Amino acid sequence: MSFNTFGRVFRFTTWGESHGPALGAVVDGCPPGLSLSEADIQPFLDARRPGTSRFTTQRQEPDAVRILSGVFEGRTTGTPISLMIENVDQRSKDYSEVAKAYRPGHADYAYDKKYGFRDYRGGGRSSARETAARVAAGAVARLAIPEVTLIAYVAELGGDCIDPARFDAAEIARNPFFCPDPEAAKRWEAKVDAARKAGSSLGAVVECVATGVPAGWGAPLYAKLDSELAAACMSINAVKGVEIGDGFAAARLSGERNADPMRPGANGDPEFLANHAGGIAGGISTGQPVVVRVAFKPTSSILTPVETITRQGDASEIITKGRHDPCVGIRGTPVVEAMVALVLADQKLLHRAQCG
Amino acid sequence: MSFNTFGRVFRFTTWGESHGPALGAVVDGCPPGLSLSEADIQPFLDARRPGTSRFTTQRQEPDAVRILSGVFEGRTTGTPISLMIENVDQRSKDYSEVAKAYRPGHADYAYDKKYGFRDYRGGGRSSARETAARVAAGAVARLAIPEVTLIAYVAELGGDCIDPARFDAAEIARNPFFCPDPEAAKRWEAKVDAARKAGSSLGAVVECVATGVPAGWGAPLYAKLDSELAAACMSINAVKGVEIGDGFAAARLSGERNADPMRPGANGDPEFLANHAGGIAGGISTGQPVVVRVAFKPTSSILTPVETITRQGDASEIITKGRHDPCVGIRGTPVVEAMVALVLADQKLLHRAQCG
Amino acid sequence: MSFNTFGRVFRFTTWGESHGPALGAVVDGCPPGLSLSEADIQPFLDARRPGTSRFTTQRQEPDAVRILSGVFEGRTTGTPISLMIENVDQRSKDYSEVAKAYRPGHADYAYDKKYGFRDYRGGGRSSARETAARVAAGAVARLAIPEVTLIAYVAELGGDCIDPARFDAAEIARNPFFCPDPEAAKRWEAKVDAARKAGSSLGAVVECVATGVPAGWGAPLYAKLDSELAAACMSINAVKGVEIGDGFAAARLSGERNADPMRPGANGDPEFLANHAGGIAGGISTGQPVVVRVAFKPTSSILTPVETITRQGDASEIITKGRHDPCVGIRGTPVVEAMVALVLADQKLLHRAQCG
Amino acid sequence: MSFNTFGRVFRFTTWGESHGPALGAVVDGCPPGLSLSEADIQPFLDARRPGTSRFTTQRQEPDAVRILSGVFEGRTTGTPISLMIENVDQRSKDYSEVAKAYRPGHADYAYDKKYGFRDYRGGGRSSARETAARVAAGAVARLAIPEVTLIAYVAELGGDCIDPARFDAAEIARNPFFCPDPEAAKRWEAKVDAARKAGSSLGAVVECVATGVPAGWGAPLYAKLDSELAAACMSINAVKGVEIGDGFAAARLSGERNADPMRPGANGDPEFLANHAGGIAGGISTGQPVVVRVAFKPTSSILTPVETITRQGDASEIITKGRHDPCVGIRGTPVVEAMVALVLADQKLLHRAQCG
Repeated sequence: MSFNTFGRVFRFTTWGESHGPALGAVVDGCPPGLSLSEADIQPFLDARRPGTSRFTTQRQEPDAVRILSGVFEGRTTGTPISLMIENVDQRSKDYSEVAKAYRPGHADYAYDKKYGFRDYRGGGRSSARETAARVAAGAVARLAIPEVTLIAYVAELGGDCIDPARFDAAEIARNPFFCPDPEAAKRWEAKVDAARKAGSSLGAVVECVATGVPAGWGAPLYAKLDSELAAACMSINAVKGVEIGDGFAAARLSGERNADPMRPGANGDPEFLANHAGGIAGGISTGQPVVVRVAFKPTSSILTPVETITRQGDASEIITKGRHDPCVGIRGTPVVEAMVALVLADQKLLHRAQCG
Repeated sequence: MSFNTFGRVFRFTTWGESHGPALGAVVDGCPPGLSLSEADIQPFLDARRPGTSRFTTQRQEPDAVRILSGVFEGRTTGTPISLMIENVDQRSKDYSEVAKAYRPGHADYAYDKKYGFRDYRGGGRSSARETAARVAAGAVARLAIPEVTLIAYVAELGGDCIDPARFDAAEIARNPFFCPDPEAAKRWEAKVDAARKAGSSLGAVVECVATGVPAGWGAPLYAKLDSELAAACMSINAVKGVEIGDGFAAARLSGERNADPMRPGANGDPEFLANHAGGIAGGISTGQPVVVRVAFKPTSSILTPVETITRQGDASEIITKGRHDPCVGIRGTPVVEAMVALVLADQKLLHRAQCG
Repeated sequence: MSFNTFGRVFRFTTWGESHGPALGAVVDGCPPGLSLSEADIQPFLDARRPGTSRFTTQRQEPDAVRILSGVFEGRTTGTPISLMIENVDQRSKDYSEVAKAYRPGHADYAYDKKYGFRDYRGGGRSSARETAARVAAGAVARLAIPEVTLIAYVAELGGDCIDPARFDAAEIARNPFFCPDPEAAKRWEAKVDAARKAGSSLGAVVECVATGVPAGWGAPLYAKLDSELAAACMSINAVKGVEIGDGFAAARLSGERNADPMRPGANGDPEFLANHAGGIAGGISTGQPVVVRVAFKPTSSILTPVETITRQGDASEIITKGRHDPCVGIRGTPVVEAMVALVLADQKLLHRAQCG
Repeated sequence: MSFNTFGRVFRFTTWGESHGPALGAVVDGCPPGLSLSEADIQPFLDARRPGTSRFTTQRQEPDAVRILSGVFEGRTTGTPISLMIENVDQRSKDYSEVAKAYRPGHADYAYDKKYGFRDYRGGGRSSARETAARVAAGAVARLAIPEVTLIAYVAELGGDCIDPARFDAAEIARNPFFCPDPEAAKRWEAKVDAARKAGSSLGAVVECVATGVPAGWGAPLYAKLDSELAAACMSINAVKGVEIGDGFAAARLSGERNADPMRPGANGDPEFLANHAGGIAGGISTGQPVVVRVAFKPTSSILTPVETITRQGDASEIITKGRHDPCVGIRGTPVVEAMVALVLADQKLLHRAQCG
């Protein structure tokens, strides 16, 4: 089955392939009356856009979004919002090699086994280009949760971590790595350059922090806020792990060390003395910052030959030439942020449905 | 919102609280004609059952399951299968302290903020007792995927890892820790004993491996096999992280190191030379073993006093007396296995729906 | 596929067969804090209960409901509410005839073709006994929509209509036919008696009117209030038609005759001069009474022999002995009312989700 | 809430307003490998297209569909199929009157009450133009059910019925009324002309018959084939009633008269001696033709002044000038057919999911 819709009441459906004429998203269930124009969406697409530095794929896509429905006189009407992005730079290329043999780590083999054949041009539906549609939808979701501030950044690249002591949110937009630590950004520049030149690739860990989420969003048991965040982030291309708060590190702490003590705070809300839980308890937000960590594997497209088989099952070798991101986690950063926004908008509406 | 249903076509809905008369699950969408009786379910409940060793909570629950519908003359009819487990040992206890003050790390505060009040007896709906219903449903799911062999075990406890070289699947059932490494099991015995006596608690990492999953299960994009597994596992009590295959470790590998090369194998299927991907590419199974890793935080119920606030917002301190698991990850093992079975059964049916 | 869940945010799942140990419903998504006990549900079950007059099946079922979860100290907690009704009078009977041959008009043949076999005792899952679970769930739904007043009645029985001029809501509870017209009730008594004695059966039309539904519930396009009502009512056993407002009669009116003119009314709301639309325009409530009409076919169980085939495909004849309702539409009345309540509760919550 | 998606595994989502730049549908879950191009869809859109005779609205829309995704080398890939239709003839018009006052029978008032405001140009989202997207999606659905033959026609117009004795399927495409009875078609021509000239409007009843549906599609209990058909058809603009088989007429029959006796037939399947049930028993297809009847109210747009109120609540009067269908049921015929195709495709896949 193909399920290209995400969300329960604030929902979006994406469509489109890497080398089709366009891709897009339909956002359904958005509250009416929100001020919305292309200008609210474009900056987020621009942040994700390829070709903006030598550290990402050189495919040139303006990723200009058009709103085709759901907005009247500058405001959302409550009806579905259709967002379309045309594919422009579908470089004429010889895909015969990819058509014939499977690229390990890519969806090639799995798609063929599932569907019997595949659109092999640039990965077809499994291309990370689809994430442009998510980012566009996420920009709409943000408008539905004005109480929330989202920040996402690369916390680790090729195994090299940022120094929390040097964390500066303002740095994130100043380097091509969404890196909040200027020292790390410098090191990563060399690292990514080296990988790119060697035809190799690197993984990364993206962190997203949502502040302003009020206590009470989320749901027992199978639409838990953390469960939805895990589904949302694990659905992003190349993602292999998701953590909430301390994540796997929490499994190494004692109960005392992992506790998030509370004391009376300002204006009636508790003050929490720690946030190991990442802002979620029992699947429901606690009012603390919601913290998600996402592991991106290294890009599977590399210039080193890898043993593989052809569609006919014969032994072969493949190298993936052409344009690709040496570290797909970098441009994954705005995608993680978008997915978190989409989950939070949905959970806000779900909470309102049941609890008024 | 409260969404207590999981799955898309093979679905289950759970209900029940820690201290209500019973809890249960309704399994819907199960294929007809499968041989099913209570005896197919009970062993899995017994594996999860509390009170079987000094390393788990001392609550005594027979966890005897009854099938109330959906089975006729020993076979599933295709109609909903209602499973009920009575709560027996709802020990008469004074819950006034838990009613008054919030236990940090528990869902107490979040539930109160969401719903305005809560069933505070033993955690109510947020109690891990709910996972008995999942295990019962999972036992039914297994019957729908006879081609798959599932194995789950604790791979790390309190930061102490098993030695893969000593991995012996037969060991898992021989110790109270679901530990496949007899040496590690011995060390953990001491470790958990110490924690228990100190009124402390420990975290754990559970691994689940599904072999026999054919290539082609899963779906782009928001019902990806990995995305569904992440949602399923993150919805389990005390879970803070989920990995597929190498997970976060993959983020530290180069593209070459992370590749899973393929070569022609027996009977037409490829032979994979590695499984960094954990058996999933592009959200779809590759035919390799599906590997999931799940991080459980240490139990939040500890005897060390933790700073907290009362329902009225006053400063207080709480210690969680009473019966609890010193390491909730241990009994989480059959729960992870059940959730993986439930996801796979659903994905098998979804695949069949679209691809025949 | 078997989908035994209805609703989008206020959802319920039913389970159980005619001759199993019990049947039930799990209500999920109910707002927290509503006062709820068995006493709020039982009267609605009693209204639907068999065996209360000679005009319905003589099966004796107390239909006593138990609440197994989701309620604490007399109030709904926001977690799933499990409702169970035990089957008591599963009269020992010889089902060999039904097991061997298909009863025309019943689900026997269709079930066998779908599932390969069936629970033939009393219709199994396709028995109208399942509607007890709906009525129980509907009683919970009513608590979530206190602003709405529901009334359902039989408007036509065996082709004999009530006289709107004699409509008296107080009459409905005074006769065994849910008939608001005392004269019609008398005629129907003779009619149903005659059918019963002849081993024949009769159809009926049930009407349900919901007043107090505010303008704005419902949704374009595929969760329209009228679309959801149609799905809900058409899912009831023996139902073959659903109308909103004037329904099929509207297809015979001119646009002028079908108009529902508006004029300024009290307290800012419009006064409508007619209600051909049955309170719904564009899929959304207008604030007028919501009017639904539901056609029940005559009970398929009759004493007249009907030509049929056996499971083996041989020619046969069957008469349906045993207990049955000579007019299933009568006891369908509380079921229609319950389904309307369930749809309205869901739509209220959905409206709140999107529009605050 | 706004739910613009229909279906469970074969799903479609529509978007677009009457006077926006375009409208469309995203079809998700379609089986892979089906041959599909615009030429498979266009004929169905042409049948629904406005402006083709004087009996429908004079809006001139080519309704040319573009496939933007999900097809590769002429075959469906299993990924979402995005279909777009540009709006061409958004005639510049003065909508100030519609903006100010509510048209009775239209969604104007309900939308304003729900969303706080509305896109009033041509009805916005509530315009029947949306049905073009359904027809496009339906054309794709037909490809997934090649075993089924669909036929839809107007059976009654303005209260004037076709004569079953003169039924000729070949006639349907020969007149502008989708009328299978040439005599009736002549009478309707005069009827519709008169209504059109008088600025009045007429209702209609559309019938759709699906032959070739195998026994076994459908599901207890809330995804019953008849329940899904009812929801699908009742969601079409201007529909006020849905019947399966004999529908309301069945409520007037005795059990004997309503029976569909079976006898052994050719190739092992039963031969049915009647089809009062419309091909569905217990929510599941029986192998007989599936028969659905749908009541369309007369178009609410008429030239006779109707009493109404303004947005401010003041008394007013409105006449609906401009282009409209004098009998919206006529062009509703291909829409009903499309919705039936969409439901059947979904049910086929659902059946395959559970029953293999």
